[in-house]
Amino acid sequence: MAVTLADELARQQRSISVAEFFEKNKHLLGFDSPTRGIITTVKEAVDNALDACEEAGVLPDIYVGILRCGQDVFRIIVEDNGPGIVPEQIPFVFGKLLYGSRFHQIRQSRGQQGIGISAAVLYAQLTTGLPTIVISRTGPALPAYRYLVQIDIQTNEPRIAGKEVVEWDRTHGTRVQIEFKSTIAAKKKLLEYLKYTSVVNPHARIRVEIDGETFLFERVSDEAITCPKAIKPHPHGIEIGQLMRMIAASSSPCDEFLVSNFSRIGKKTAIEICQSAGLSPRSPVMSLSPQDQKNLLAAMQNARVPAPPTQTCLSPIGEELITRSLEKEFQMDFVKARTRPGSVYSGHPFLVEAAIGYGGKLSPDGNATILRFANRVPLMYQQGACAITACIAGITWKNYNIAQSGLPLGPVLILVHVASTNVPFTSESKDAIAGIPEIEREITLVLQELGRELKTYLSQRDKNRLAEDRARAVCAIIPDIASKVAEIVEMPVPDTSLIEGRIMRRIVVKKVTRDGRVRIEVRNHTGTRGAISLYDISPDAGRDAVPPPAIVTEVEGEYTKMWQLEVAPGEMWAAEYGGSGGGTVQVRGVSPENVAVVDLDAE
Amino acid sequence: MAVTLADELARQQRSISVAEFFEKNKHLLGFDSPTRGIITTVKEAVDNALDACEEAGVLPDIYVGILRCGQDVFRIIVEDNGPGIVPEQIPFVFGKLLYGSRFHQIRQSRGQQGIGISAAVLYAQLTTGLPTIVISRTGPALPAYRYLVQIDIQTNEPRIAGKEVVEWDRTHGTRVQIEFKSTIAAKKKLLEYLKYTSVVNPHARIRVEIDGETFLFERVSDEAITCPKAIKPHPHGIEIGQLMRMIAASSSPCDEFLVSNFSRIGKKTAIEICQSAGLSPRSPVMSLSPQDQKNLLAAMQNARVPAPPTQTCLSPIGEELITRSLEKEFQMDFVKARTRPGSVYSGHPFLVEAAIGYGGKLSPDGNATILRFANRVPLMYQQGACAITACIAGITWKNYNIAQSGLPLGPVLILVHVASTNVPFTSESKDAIAGIPEIEREITLVLQELGRELKTYLSQRDKNRLAEDRARAVCAIIPDIASKVAEIVEMPVPDTSLIEGRIMRRIVVKKVTRDGRVRIEVRNHTGTRGAISLYDISPDAGRDAVPPPAIVTEVEGEYTKMWQLEVAPGEMWAAEYGGSGGGTVQVRGVSPENVAVVDLDAE
Repeated sequence: MAVTLADELARQQRSISVAEFFEKNKHLLGFDSPTRGIITTVKEAVDNALDACEEAGVLPDIYVGILRCGQDVFRIIVEDNGPGIVPEQIPFVFGKLLYGSRFHQIRQSRGQQGIGISAAVLYAQLTTGLPTIVISRTGPALPAYRYLVQIDIQTNEPRIAGKEVVEWDRTHGTRVQIEFKSTIAAKKKLLEYLKYTSVVNPHARIRVEIDGETFLFERVSDEAITCPKAIKPHPHGIEIGQLMRMIAASSSPCDEFLVSNFSRIGKKTAIEICQSAGLSPRSPVMSLSPQDQKNLLAAMQNARVPAPPTQTCLSPIGEELITRSLEKEFQMDFVKARTRPGSVYSGHPFLVEAAIGYGGKLSPDGNATILRFANRVPLMYQQGACAITACIAGITWKNYNIAQSGLPLGPVLILVHVASTNVPFTSESKDAIAGIPEIEREITLVLQELGRELKTYLSQRDKNRLAEDRARAVCAIIPDIASKVAEIVEMPVPDTSLIEGRIMRRIVVKKVTRDGRVRIEVRNHTGTRGAISLYDISPDAGRDAVPPPAIVTEVEGEYTKMWQLEVAPGEMWAAEYGGSGGGTVQVRGVSPENVAVVDLDAE
Repeated sequence: MAVTLADELARQQRSISVAEFFEKNKHLLGFDSPTRGIITTVKEAVDNALDACEEAGVLPDIYVGILRCGQDVFRIIVEDNGPGIVPEQIPFVFGKLLYGSRFHQIRQSRGQQGIGISAAVLYAQLTTGLPTIVISRTGPALPAYRYLVQIDIQTNEPRIAGKEVVEWDRTHGTRVQIEFKSTIAAKKKLLEYLKYTSVVNPHARIRVEIDGETFLFERVSDEAITCPKAIKPHPHGIEIGQLMRMIAASSSPCDEFLVSNFSRIGKKTAIEICQSAGLSPRSPVMSLSPQDQKNLLAAMQNARVPAPPTQTCLSPIGEELITRSLEKEFQMDFVKARTRPGSVYSGHPFLVEAAIGYGGKLSPDGNATILRFANRVPLMYQQGACAITACIAGITWKNYNIAQSGLPLGPVLILVHVASTNVPFTSESKDAIAGIPEIEREITLVLQELGRELKTYLSQRDKNRLAEDRARAVCAIIPDIASKVAEIVEMPVPDTSLIEGRIMRRIVVKKVTRDGRVRIEVRNHTGTRGAISLYDISPDAGRDAVPPPAIVTEVEGEYTKMWQLEVAPGEMWAAEYGGSGGGTVQVRGVSPENVAVVDLDAE
């Protein structure tokens, strides 16, 4: 009887295609809801576009279109000016899960699994039955090809539903058009994703069209990112199973095998490793017994070699760029960024960078704003499942004068970017980073460093607040005293600004509004040259401002006008425009104890 | 130039085998650390053993062995008395990822992906280079086979490193032996996992040997679990892509196609669906145009059919069994369980059951104890990423008189079990349940129901506390008064117990220790028969107790002695043993307002 049962059970045993597996478990790929599906699709396509442009050394020019084209069907188009895909590869890149060029390379890239975009093709086909339309062109002298691609679920092989040469205005690039069932366009979340993407990809230009509305994320840097270079595996980060496979595929002698297959092993080190494993450096590596192979691995792992070369295979954003991007987007009172040196987990090089911002336009209530990035891609979902969040919650923020209940509270912004040749995501949807101890340690260290900086700033600020209140009072009353005195002694009213400045030995910023004219003055009473960024946030557009501001942005009727200026000691700078004043004035670039903002409109 | 680049990039494009993918991303399968690897391996093997025994209708008798067999190598053995695996299938079941019998069936099972145990084989091979050893036998008349299995990483196909017939003492069953690199045996976590597993699998007997120490989790029920039956897909839970595939594979007319491929569709409904889709019920379904197929799907989704039959395909633990298991393990003052009716997400039937416990041996400090289960498997990792945790944190526990900071605080235990034909885990490691709105809604509802019950209990308890304090004072003083009065009037000391009882109209439990003898009396002063469980927790082992307790357990020198007893109205029950008294006495089975525990030792 038991025989029958085992035989019966055996008849139910079947191979599961990877496409079948992910069709059933589509939430693993970020397709758990139709709205989320739109974000995931755009994200995968934009990631691919940015990766391709980086490989080609091209400044990315990306178009994203989202159009409702039926009662509950949306069409998503993503178009780039990358190097294009050769026609024979198109069906595989889009119509086969686990197919790609970046999985086997040890370098930082956005895509790393060969799953993303074909998952979108799979999801589209599941919900609408329609093939995905791909146009690609690899150069001006070559035609553009248009493919209709589907996935055979049972085999995970591409199915070509159509193929033709078409006219296309781009000389090189790729355009993918995917239609699937959804109910809403997920506009807010999508714009948020694109905003954060452009923060960490300042060289990219992204045009977006959602249901008729258009948005532009303009590039702020004209320098293409240098594409990270692939490295070889590191001798300390390899397991016996991998080594055995590499040995089986090699016909070299031991020492050459080591030199040519691993990073950081030169001829001398290779010979040392062989000797300490009790092997002859010139014997063919293929001939090693299993025990010899284990000895070789042990010798490799004990060898003193430098850490993997993180500089070439990783592409951090950099402290300056992080600070600049955050200043532009959030206009905070304090912001500091840190890029940690490279490190390694399980043989994979990685690097953590982070920033902390405080005050300014951040909401004073509720949890801190957390921005998570992995390999220059913003992580938009599953904050609670991410090692970054766990590390933030694990720090005692009260030590840095920040309130905390689980996460830190108040007008605090925390940005963390993890860059690696293999980011350990918690699932194929790449939403959250797994809790790898080495990575958690680096995140915690960089946040503690930044926390100390924030604490210094906060105590300084508290000390300065009293002094500033006094300065403001003095500056407000001096002109009145001066004009009263002038009246009594029947003399013209003297210029009191110098006195004001001297009282404070600071850079003094004054905003005064009279008769529909707004005047902002900056006086440098310190002994050093002051290069500052001046933000004037008010309902005035300041279109006639002299000198004109470097940047003007508008949010719900509030204009932020930004000037970048330098004032020599004892000198004065001023700007004027027509308007009704009010709002607030903020200054960046000088340490806060050296600045006094005397915003007379605010009185 | 661009052509060259696209061509160059094309040369790097490669297919990625699913084994390669998971070797690189082993954290997705729960192998992110060597310690965790041990737990994951045992879990996958035990899950398979329980599933196999369930399919065979056999009471599981499982052996788990963990032995250090080298400086940093552990051998894990899991052996079961299931139906066994036919020899030809052994290499595939253990040596190929995405291979199994349960993926294509719509019914609750522990394994559902065809990944688990082969992932352990993969990890073992990666870290030690060794094959996994499998012995299996499918019946007493048949020989046992012993296989050495490995996985070819590049192809994800099994490689047989050895195969022979061996002697084996089991008449049917499977034994798997896996060796991999680790540093410690993870004993505590492992025993915790096995304890929770036996809570929800009371029919299983699990013997464990860790590094020489042995443990036994004995079965407490002799009834095998009925194996859930596979059902057909539900017409409301299917997407166009799936329907198109089913249509392409069918040669039936429309109506027969519907009846034979879907649950809840009879002949009459099938004809109605065809008609509302504008199709002739007798036309071959294969001949339908794509638009016809879409119309058919729309008609299926609008058809009024009952929800999927959750009774047969799901196997809930049940309220009574949950309560009993929790009482046994945690001895709380209050425990209530609820099993919700079946429900559906994306066509997958599911069901949520939960329990709340309070007081007793639960720690009064810190977060509530949370026990998460999915398809009768305890979830041991990633609590923070789980929809169950999110739902618990999302409830306003203050409404139920429970303190809260994110999670509820204090001596509270919350158990949630999600059973489904396809549990939506957040990753292949099956640690956490994804945030599917339908499931979250059911979890929240059941916890709110239980929260209200807990609130009722807590207010009752507060009311009773005062009355109990009075009773305790009265009962403590009456014997003294009685003996004083007896002395004065020179009469023998009267028995005061009846007076005590009448004062309170309750079941009165008294524990008194005199001259090295402990006596516990239970008097029933209510009008109804009282069946109670009496727990006496103290350093006394009570080995000579008369009557002997039903259960005695020991934790760090504290013995919990439990008697089950019934006392008729006006009657008395007593137990005695040698000892020094002290400790606490607790009573279950009667509503708390009807019990007074007068623990004189505690005075």
